[in-house]
Amino acid sequence: MPTIFFYGPELDDEKKRELIDSFTEIASRLTGIDKSAFVVYLRASSPDKVGVGGELLKDRLEREKGSERT
Amino acid sequence: MPTIFFYGPELDDEKKRELIDSFTEIASRLTGIDKSAFVVYLRASSPDKVGVGGELLKDRLEREKGSERT
Amino acid sequence: MPTIFFYGPELDDEKKRELIDSFTEIASRLTGIDKSAFVVYLRASSPDKVGVGGELLKDRLEREKGSERT
Amino acid sequence: MPTIFFYGPELDDEKKRELIDSFTEIASRLTGIDKSAFVVYLRASSPDKVGVGGELLKDRLEREKGSERT
Amino acid sequence: MPTIFFYGPELDDEKKRELIDSFTEIASRLTGIDKSAFVVYLRASSPDKVGVGGELLKDRLEREKGSERT
Amino acid sequence: MPTIFFYGPELDDEKKRELIDSFTEIASRLTGIDKSAFVVYLRASSPDKVGVGGELLKDRLEREKGSERT
Repeated sequence: MPTIFFYGPELDDEKKRELIDSFTEIASRLTGIDKSAFVVYLRASSPDKVGVGGELLKDRLEREKGSERT
Repeated sequence: MPTIFFYGPELDDEKKRELIDSFTEIASRLTGIDKSAFVVYLRASSPDKVGVGGELLKDRLEREKGSERT
Repeated sequence: MPTIFFYGPELDDEKKRELIDSFTEIASRLTGIDKSAFVVYLRASSPDKVGVGGELLKDRLEREKGSERT
Repeated sequence: MPTIFFYGPELDDEKKRELIDSFTEIASRLTGIDKSAFVVYLRASSPDKVGVGGELLKDRLEREKGSERT
Repeated sequence: MPTIFFYGPELDDEKKRELIDSFTEIASRLTGIDKSAFVVYLRASSPDKVGVGGELLKDRLEREKGSERT
Repeated sequence: MPTIFFYGPELDDEKKRELIDSFTEIASRLTGIDKSAFVVYLRASSPDKVGVGGELLKDRLEREKGSERT
């Protein structure tokens, strides 16, 4: 019955598979609970819907991209 | 003020209405808190964003569909 | 794999059983997913850890109790 | 490391910025933890995915709009 | 109906009141939704139940305290 | 800024360390985001606060323990 929520960037299917497989494998071994009981929710969060350090992530990424170019 | 989150498949409006109504009815009766104070969030989760038993749900559903056909 | 979170007051075991049983029954029927796949988390929230309408719930309950006595 | 989740209506970028900035500012001051450690997730919830008082929010809003017109 | 979750350190009642009041005030103004509809959940998380940068927060705090003394 | 929530059984500190370290390591590699940006919340859930398959987990565990003894 353990449940894992992952709030992070959008991932392609291959990476989702690896994340789900690895998280479940590790958590099953550490808890002693069978893998079949685990559920992992991937909750994607785009940069215009997250704030980091008081700032919209989108704004920060654009600024960093801007300063890289210079 | 109680709050309920439902992470599950997408539902049509008629089923959403029934789920929200029933959950609120039951929880209001059991807690003694007025129905007006309840909020229910339906957070749909598509099969390519959930892992079950270490496996992407989409992959499992496809495999099961495949084996049904045989 | 559907998962339900209930944020509300502490309940005794008999009420927890009824809430879990009813929620799972209803959601299983509406989604067509077997009851065995459902997990319900009861996350109790005491009145000194919730704000309602901008006010600590504990404060509101005390005020209401006070005004009842009068 | 504190994390804030905001489940509410969709907001435009200007309002998101103000919400993220203000929440982080206040929470940083009250906890004494540096602003850089705060993450705010804006999880929009449309009126056809929330229930209030046992009723789909969409239905309530339509009813209220209807009665305004009369 | 908007709902805010705050995962962070334990706070005393005075700070909880200020956090709940300010968050609700700001969010109500930005969304145009009446303050009475807002619920804020304070979900305390102690340093032995959070990981930051791959490390148990408790371990990091102890290390930092250790190095301050030197 | 990615955030991971783990709802599962209580773990001892050594297992918490391994879970936090492994989850962060894997998720950092798959997302390309620096480990320092990851936060993991361990939200323990005791068997009298979870329902599985419509049943209080505590009840199921007791029944299974009973049948093992026979």
